Amino acid sequence: MTGSLILGGGGMIGQKLAAHLQATDPDTPLTLHDIAFPPKGMPGVTGDVSQPGIMQALAKKRFDTIYHLASVVSGEAEADFTKGWQTNLHPMLALLEGLRLEHTASGGTYRPKVIFTSSIAVFGGPFPEVIPDDYATSPQSSYGAQKVACEILLQDYARKGFIDGLSLRLPTICVRPGKPNLAASSFFSGIIREPLNGQEAALPVPDTVRHWFASPRAAVGFLAHAARIDTSQLNGHRALNLPGVTCTVAEQIEALRQVAGAKVADLIVPKPDPDVAALIARWPEAFTATRAKTLGFRAEDSFADIIQTYIADEMSSE
Amino acid sequence: MTGSLILGGGGMIGQKLAAHLQATDPDTPLTLHDIAFPPKGMPGVTGDVSQPGIMQALAKKRFDTIYHLASVVSGEAEADFTKGWQTNLHPMLALLEGLRLEHTASGGTYRPKVIFTSSIAVFGGPFPEVIPDDYATSPQSSYGAQKVACEILLQDYARKGFIDGLSLRLPTICVRPGKPNLAASSFFSGIIREPLNGQEAALPVPDTVRHWFASPRAAVGFLAHAARIDTSQLNGHRALNLPGVTCTVAEQIEALRQVAGAKVADLIVPKPDPDVAALIARWPEAFTATRAKTLGFRAEDSFADIIQTYIADEMSSE
Repeated sequence: MTGSLILGGGGMIGQKLAAHLQATDPDTPLTLHDIAFPPKGMPGVTGDVSQPGIMQALAKKRFDTIYHLASVVSGEAEADFTKGWQTNLHPMLALLEGLRLEHTASGGTYRPKVIFTSSIAVFGGPFPEVIPDDYATSPQSSYGAQKVACEILLQDYARKGFIDGLSLRLPTICVRPGKPNLAASSFFSGIIREPLNGQEAALPVPDTVRHWFASPRAAVGFLAHAARIDTSQLNGHRALNLPGVTCTVAEQIEALRQVAGAKVADLIVPKPDPDVAALIARWPEAFTATRAKTLGFRAEDSFADIIQTYIADEMSSE
Repeated sequence: MTGSLILGGGGMIGQKLAAHLQATDPDTPLTLHDIAFPPKGMPGVTGDVSQPGIMQALAKKRFDTIYHLASVVSGEAEADFTKGWQTNLHPMLALLEGLRLEHTASGGTYRPKVIFTSSIAVFGGPFPEVIPDDYATSPQSSYGAQKVACEILLQDYARKGFIDGLSLRLPTICVRPGKPNLAASSFFSGIIREPLNGQEAALPVPDTVRHWFASPRAAVGFLAHAARIDTSQLNGHRALNLPGVTCTVAEQIEALRQVAGAKVADLIVPKPDPDVAALIARWPEAFTATRAKTLGFRAEDSFADIIQTYIADEMSSE
C-alpha cells in the first residue's frame, strides 16, 4: 500500500483534488508530482514528466491509484507542436510501460488504478446538437489528438489486465480561479472571474457560442468518484463523456447578471479574436453523458450554480 | 519527384497494389519496402520498420506518395503485446516526425500524401446493426488500438499541413490467396479458398456470425483511389469507413455452394475455437460507409461477386 499519486498535482485541479483526498481519506499516503507547485499550496515532488526516466521511476513506486492530470494545455499544444506531443503523449506511453513491467514483476498481483483526465476536445465538429456516448472522436486540435491517443493506450493496457482505470472526458472547467492560462477556453472563466473581482474581461468570441461546463468542485468529484467505481461496469469502453451544463456565452453573462448584478456583468467587453473563435467553433456544445450519469457522476444543474460554487469556494475566505 | 513508396510492399495487398500502379502509371517510380518479399513476386528494399532509423531514412527520400500497409496482423498483435505496439505504432510516429522535418527543411513545399491502411477493428461492440460514419472508435484488440492511434497521429500531422493524407478503414479482405495467416479473421478466407482448392477448411465460429468484406481487388482500388482524391473534401476528418459486403458465414457458405457446387461447400467443417469466437464476437457487422461512397470508393455488391473475383484473379492462371 503506497497510496495515491497525482501527476499534475501542482495544477489548479491537482491541488483541489489533493485537499479533497486529504480531507476525506487522511490515512492513504498522497504524493503530488508536477513541474512546479504554487508557493502557498500543498507541496510535492518536482519533476518534468517529459524527461526520460521520470515516469519509469514513478511506476516503480507501485502506487495504488494514479491520477494523471499532467498536461500542456490546448493553446500551448497548438502553438508548440513538439512540446505538446512530448508532454501529452510520450509520458503516458512511458508510464503505462513502466506499470506493465511492475505488473509482470509482481506476478500479476500489482494492477494500479489509473485515472486519466481527457477532454471533450477529443471531438471535432460539425456536431449533432447533443452528442451521444457512442459519438466518434475526431479531434481538430493537437491537444484533443493527444488526449485520444492516451485514452486508446489506457484502454488497451487495461483490457490486457496490466492496469485498471478509465479516462474522464472533462467538460470545460469553469470558473477557474487565479489568472488566465494558455488554454483556448481560458476566457470562459475569465468573463466570470474578472468581473466578480471588479475587473474588465475580454470576450474573444460571439455570445452565441454554446459550450459544455462543470466547476472545479465537480471535476474533483469526478476524479474521486472514478477512483471508487468498479470498472467492470464499463464493458471495456473506458472513456466517459462526463455530465455538465450546456449554455451560450449570452446565458453565461445573463447568469452573472442575475447572481452579481448588471454593473458586474457590464465589465465584459467584446474583443473578437479570430484564432480563438476558429478553434472554439469546432468544439462541442452538449452531451447526453448517459453512461457517466448512470455510473453516478454528477455535475451542476445550471450555470448560476457554477458561479455560486466559484463564489463559495474562492471568494468567501478573501 | 521521387515517386511512390509502399511500406509493407511484400505483403499480399502490397504486391497487388504494386502491380496495379505499375500497370496504370508506369512512369512514376515505385519503391517497395518490407521485412521480406515473396520469391516470385515484385522485389523491393528489405528492412524492419520497427528498427531505429529505418523510417527516418525513408522519410529523407521525399516520396510523393507513401502507402503505409506495414503491420503485424491482429492475432499476432494480441499474442505479442510488445511486438504489436513496436511495429504498429512506433514506426508511424517515426515516419511522421521524419516527414515533418523534411517538410520544414523544404521551406514548406514538401507535403507528401500518406495513405494509411486502418481497419474496422478500430470499433468495439456492442454495435448498432449498421454502423454510421460518426460512430465511436473504441477498439477491443491491440491491433485495433494501434490502428486508431495511427489514424489520430496522421490526422493531426495533416491538420498542421506537414503531410497530406487519409486513413482507410478496410473491411476484412476476403478471399485472401495463399496460406492462412495469424489474423483472427484468416478463416473468413480459408472457408472459401481451401474448398475451392479441393481441401477441407475449419470453421471456428458459429455460422450466424455476420461481418463486413471486400476483395483484395477492391482493396487495391481503395488505395489507388485514395491517392487521387482531393482531401479538402474530408473536412478534417481523415479516417474513412470503406464500403463492403455484409453477410453471415452461412451466407458465405451458400454463395460458395451457388458458385462452386455442394461438394465444394461441404468441405467446410465446423471446429469451434473459443478464442477466435470471443475476438470476432465484438467485431462489426455492417457500415453505411456514406462518406466513402460519396467520395467514389467502390466495393463488390455481393459475396458471390467476391468469390468470382477470387476465381478470376487467383485461379484462372493456375
